[in-house]
Amino acid sequence: MNFTDEIIDALSIDCLIFGFKDAQLSILLVKHGIGPTLGQWALPGSWIKYNESIDEAAGRILSSQTSVENIYLEQFKTFGEVRRFSPRRVITIAYYALVNIEKFELHPGPTEADVSWFNIQEVPTMPFDHNKIFEDCLSFLKHKIQHEPIGFNLLPAKFTLLQLLELYEAILGQKLDKSNFRKKFLKMNLLVDTQERQQDVSHRAATLYRFDESVYNKLLEKGFTFEV
Amino acid sequence: MNFTDEIIDALSIDCLIFGFKDAQLSILLVKHGIGPTLGQWALPGSWIKYNESIDEAAGRILSSQTSVENIYLEQFKTFGEVRRFSPRRVITIAYYALVNIEKFELHPGPTEADVSWFNIQEVPTMPFDHNKIFEDCLSFLKHKIQHEPIGFNLLPAKFTLLQLLELYEAILGQKLDKSNFRKKFLKMNLLVDTQERQQDVSHRAATLYRFDESVYNKLLEKGFTFEV
Repeated sequence: MNFTDEIIDALSIDCLIFGFKDAQLSILLVKHGIGPTLGQWALPGSWIKYNESIDEAAGRILSSQTSVENIYLEQFKTFGEVRRFSPRRVITIAYYALVNIEKFELHPGPTEADVSWFNIQEVPTMPFDHNKIFEDCLSFLKHKIQHEPIGFNLLPAKFTLLQLLELYEAILGQKLDKSNFRKKFLKMNLLVDTQERQQDVSHRAATLYRFDESVYNKLLEKGFTFEV
Repeated sequence: MNFTDEIIDALSIDCLIFGFKDAQLSILLVKHGIGPTLGQWALPGSWIKYNESIDEAAGRILSSQTSVENIYLEQFKTFGEVRRFSPRRVITIAYYALVNIEKFELHPGPTEADVSWFNIQEVPTMPFDHNKIFEDCLSFLKHKIQHEPIGFNLLPAKFTLLQLLELYEAILGQKLDKSNFRKKFLKMNLLVDTQERQQDVSHRAATLYRFDESVYNKLLEKGFTFEV
């Protein structure tokens, strides 16, 4: 086992941060401020340091490039096609998180020209294989929301059934039947009626719900099948 | 973005191959024939070459060290704790597969002293964090078999309900109620009665089943909840 020129020696992390607001699902991108990809929008990402775990690296990179911090980043998948980063061969570990957009102020880091949310329908052409990584992660999320509860971090603490429906529609990229959706969700006992209603709305104020934390965690463990 | 000494530059692949036979779940290990871990049993694993994808590397490494080839290796997870490989810092991408033991003849590769199946209850102390990677993958499998069909590659083409039960019991590490198991599985329409019975058995010959491929694939996509 010798370390020769033949051995892969470049390893990076890329972060897929999905945010939700006003019925829109967005992804967090940075505009590169230096290097050959100057001026291009891309997933936040960089190299892993010798003295940090890969989980720590993901948090550090995201925080330094975007100011988004203290969120739970979960490992998604490692990408290692031969031609994924030309001319140098780089393998990248992708992490993802789902966040409530309103909770974060964005500031570009020292090597970023800008940082911004992009609606998932309007993601620009990105360098390397970032578009493929993004598409893969979106497919993964589409599968995931049909088998376990998500939304805890994407929605405000109290939300309406319409907001939850819009979250599902945004991720799945399709319209759902409202009354069916309502029925299925109420049957799961996942939602607790807060006995409060929306404020400051012109239309008829809707009931506000919250997630039942113990049911939520039980369903996370057990999984469910939510057919659309 | 400079490549300095600070940047991680060692990346490996480790393979978790689970096999099933005679009601026993086993894992495939190799005995190192060279280097500082000489004589120790470990997961098959090595470095990734510059001209191969990580999926290709996983197949090449497994084949060269054990002779097990032409199987579908799926990416499990990437492990990158700071102290996971001392003194050099190495990040490893773990792949897994589920196979029918009887299909494979084992031959150690040029750097392996031996290769063998180990019952999952009798896995030796392995170098690096291989025991942790193994435990993590076993937990993952326990969760997985409760949410999607597996067994297609682990069982013979025609199998009895008892064999399927024993597979579930081996992975979950617990006894299951036989009649409950039978009822739940038959309800899924996943099993097809082949109208054949076991041959050469001293006890009453049991019905042989096969998986209905289209239901199997549908359940793979859709998932299910199988509570034990």
